[in-house]
Amino acid sequence: MYRLHIANKNYSSWSLRPWLLMSELAIPFEERLTPFDADANWASFRAFSPTGQVPCLIDGELAVWDSLAIVEYLAEHHPGVWPAAADARAWARSACAEMHSGFRALRDECPMNCGLRVRLTTPSEPLRHDLARLEELWAQGLETFGGPFLAGGTFTAVDAFFAPVAFRVQGFDLPLGAATRGYVERLLALPGTQAWYRAALAEPWRDEPHERETLAAGERLVDHRDASPA
Amino acid sequence: MYRLHIANKNYSSWSLRPWLLMSELAIPFEERLTPFDADANWASFRAFSPTGQVPCLIDGELAVWDSLAIVEYLAEHHPGVWPAAADARAWARSACAEMHSGFRALRDECPMNCGLRVRLTTPSEPLRHDLARLEELWAQGLETFGGPFLAGGTFTAVDAFFAPVAFRVQGFDLPLGAATRGYVERLLALPGTQAWYRAALAEPWRDEPHERETLAAGERLVDHRDASPA
Ligand SMILES: N[C@@H](CCC(=O)N[C@@H](CS)C(=O)NCC(=O)O)C(=O)O
Ligand SMILES: N[C@@H](CCC(=O)N[C@@H](CS)C(=O)NCC(=O)O)C(=O)O
Repeated sequence: MYRLHIANKNYSSWSLRPWLLMSELAIPFEERLTPFDADANWASFRAFSPTGQVPCLIDGELAVWDSLAIVEYLAEHHPGVWPAAADARAWARSACAEMHSGFRALRDECPMNCGLRVRLTTPSEPLRHDLARLEELWAQGLETFGGPFLAGGTFTAVDAFFAPVAFRVQGFDLPLGAATRGYVERLLALPGTQAWYRAALAEPWRDEPHERETLAAGERLVDHRDASPA
Repeated sequence: MYRLHIANKNYSSWSLRPWLLMSELAIPFEERLTPFDADANWASFRAFSPTGQVPCLIDGELAVWDSLAIVEYLAEHHPGVWPAAADARAWARSACAEMHSGFRALRDECPMNCGLRVRLTTPSEPLRHDLARLEELWAQGLETFGGPFLAGGTFTAVDAFFAPVAFRVQGFDLPLGAATRGYVERLLALPGTQAWYRAALAEPWRDEPHERETLAAGERLVDHRDASPA
């Protein structure tokens, strides 16, 4: 059975990608969650991951580190990871790889923090650029391949790659058009996303660097973790 | 025939990846080079690339933007892009995806500028972290799969992904161990890398932002473009 190493569901956006993909595709795996620890991340994550980062997938003797490599590894063994049509597949891979190496402002300025709601102060120029590109990219996918998912009728890896962005949109109430807002709602309503969210709210840990980064983005509105039975 | 959009060979590290892969694997393509233009990159690159960035591969009606997506697209149509053995392939993909989303300090502080030689001022803590990880990663690949390339006996996509790093090592004389230094030399000696380098030296364009970034890293030693018949 696969073992998937992840960190806090409340914060770990890269962990969410393979976790959600495997959950939605019903690929069985054992989850191993190691909470962030500002003083010891590197040392504690290095025990199972060569980069000292999560996610990391263990399959027998093999370690596959990095969320995108995990996706390609799973695609070799399970149907449905990528769209079946060659053009949709090329599009989905381009979008994933663009996300993987880009959208720096979105990532740095609007960290994923599932439970928190923050009123964003004026978005920076790079953030506005990222949001415009996101809107355009999603609209293109939904239009070209007919929806309701980004590359067509079924949930694939490219949707898993943008699920962390859905939590960012929710957390900071990021401005989106009507079509792409509907897509975010669909992502957030998936059984896998819902399960991740509930678990995130129930987590007892608070990691100071992550909390600080989130609050640097604007004004704290609500913390849904407060209401949750931890 | 494929059309591959790239930018200046002297600067465009992401362009080098698919260009070198296709060259070394003898996959025919037509090269389209659009030089950087600090005032008009976005507008001019948007004419052919949805992200306004290079590289972008055009195959008939299809645009595959992003170097990693291009590699996976080519892997569907041509043998030899990834290692044939499953474990070497998983390792190669992990290393590529790690490079794609990581090594930020190496990328930001030591830009690729093929012709320039710069004496690096004291490396930052994040840069030292990146260099240590690079050394470890390369040594692991060379040892586990037996060399002379990163994932075994033949040049594959993972070597193409680290070719820009070889130019950075050369440009800033970055400190590496003996085994990995030999690997850099092998990368730089490939016919494809040599052809790229010669073309880079002969380019007539100088892009101010790229030049400034390079010189921010340390003291200018030699500019091999000066000697080159432009
Ligand atoms: N390339 C990686 C990036 C992973 C990454 O940055 N993970 C974060 C958590 S979401 C991490 O492990 N950070 C801990 C650290 O850097 O100390 C991937 O996609 O898997
Ligand atoms: N994710 C992209 C990154 C590409 C990228 O950053 N390209 C640079 C040139 S090497 C670029 O086009 N920069 C122009 C700009 O951003 O205006 C890939 O790997 O293809």
